[in-house]
Amino acid sequence: MAFTSILKIRFDDVDGAGIVYYPQFFHLCHKAFEDFFDDASSVSYPSLINDLRRGFPTVAINSEFMAPLRYGDIVLVKLAIEKIGRSSVTFKYEIRRKKDAELCFSAHITKVFMDLDSNSVLALPDDMRTLLENIL
Amino acid sequence: MAFTSILKIRFDDVDGAGIVYYPQFFHLCHKAFEDFFDDASSVSYPSLINDLRRGFPTVAINSEFMAPLRYGDIVLVKLAIEKIGRSSVTFKYEIRRKKDAELCFSAHITKVFMDLDSNSVLALPDDMRTLLENIL
Amino acid sequence: MAFTSILKIRFDDVDGAGIVYYPQFFHLCHKAFEDFFDDASSVSYPSLINDLRRGFPTVAINSEFMAPLRYGDIVLVKLAIEKIGRSSVTFKYEIRRKKDAELCFSAHITKVFMDLDSNSVLALPDDMRTLLENIL
Amino acid sequence: MAFTSILKIRFDDVDGAGIVYYPQFFHLCHKAFEDFFDDASSVSYPSLINDLRRGFPTVAINSEFMAPLRYGDIVLVKLAIEKIGRSSVTFKYEIRRKKDAELCFSAHITKVFMDLDSNSVLALPDDMRTLLENIL
Repeated sequence: MAFTSILKIRFDDVDGAGIVYYPQFFHLCHKAFEDFFDDASSVSYPSLINDLRRGFPTVAINSEFMAPLRYGDIVLVKLAIEKIGRSSVTFKYEIRRKKDAELCFSAHITKVFMDLDSNSVLALPDDMRTLLENIL
Repeated sequence: MAFTSILKIRFDDVDGAGIVYYPQFFHLCHKAFEDFFDDASSVSYPSLINDLRRGFPTVAINSEFMAPLRYGDIVLVKLAIEKIGRSSVTFKYEIRRKKDAELCFSAHITKVFMDLDSNSVLALPDDMRTLLENIL
Repeated sequence: MAFTSILKIRFDDVDGAGIVYYPQFFHLCHKAFEDFFDDASSVSYPSLINDLRRGFPTVAINSEFMAPLRYGDIVLVKLAIEKIGRSSVTFKYEIRRKKDAELCFSAHITKVFMDLDSNSVLALPDDMRTLLENIL
Repeated sequence: MAFTSILKIRFDDVDGAGIVYYPQFFHLCHKAFEDFFDDASSVSYPSLINDLRRGFPTVAINSEFMAPLRYGDIVLVKLAIEKIGRSSVTFKYEIRRKKDAELCFSAHITKVFMDLDSNSVLALPDDMRTLLENIL
């Protein structure tokens, strides 16, 4: 089970070497993460952040870059879930070029559920756990 | 009178055509605007925003792009003040390449002093007016 | 006649004051400009840039910011054409929040058709002129 | 041995939760990487890319985020070298807030020396190896 966003590589996503700037791969991952909430959750990520003042700051990243992306590429950003802990979640991302399905990037990104006002770690509430288990 | 920031064009400032992406010129302007507060004001711009909850949202831009910038260029971003109203200020920016002093960009950017919590326009307080008049 | 892109305000589009960073409005405009080529042209903008080595660098901007955008807003970016010259085109952009149709931003952006290798201005070829006249 | 860049967290480095957007930590790392070349190498990174058409694309990242950064923070980005292979180099980055020296981020970033035109991996030339060994 997984969720996939289809995204365009934009004019400003490239670097001085003419390929997608490597931190932009994480921007793409976050767009898919937001799209997943818009698609699957009753609460959008902006609403979780702005209204409920909760969110998922990133605590660890493990990633590999297999092939460059270029301006004009369309990419499939696939988000899956690898592990759900008491308050942490490890997401697995894969980014493929649409035209040839080549795997260009993969990452394991661990996030922790937090109260943004008190800056404290929270146990995942049941509805959030259920939401995430649906794509486990 | 004017304030000048010296900034490097960075690896991710370019676009798919290999020149600095045109919105990045405004990012450069804002960096000089922040540096001006750090240099000349008793209150930094982050402190104005975060602690005093006041700021200068942009309301109008008039700008010309005369020559492209490229990765590796060092630029001089000159900030001057053109007009100070009751609550608005029009800043004049010029961006030149350091190596040959060529004028690559100029802009008139009008900002309004606002309370960020009530989202209401404020008259410029005396200390802010004095700060800005120093570079008029 | 006009072309409209529907875009999400993303997690990193905001600034330290919690509203969309003003240069990001121009990023939104460029996304609509690229989407217009994808939709209406036989040649995508990436292909125009990468393969034909031609493009439309920006030479002048005139813009107004009427209302702030926030994280989570969905926006309609409307692109129309105001004037077509021998080699220059003035685009008119309007950005509205989807939920209440409030006009938040408008801009006139003038671009010039250029050869990216020789860095020289070109007369608009007939097919490009026709493409643009369709939304005049 | 290490190289350190001192950088300001800028107005647009934050995300919708009001803290530095996590991919921005990699933007900070790349700025330090470029500053290192400006400081220690006879060839700047822009010149390596633009003139010699060689560069160091990223192939792997391993990173931890220990504490958030906020708008207005000044950071020390420390770059060291962990391992030099035949054509790959693993850099170690640490980002600390200047005011209290708190370690907010660390990363191991592996890059490979490549010819950007042929897209092929190159053995590190002697002068590059010497440059890097100086901060090993």
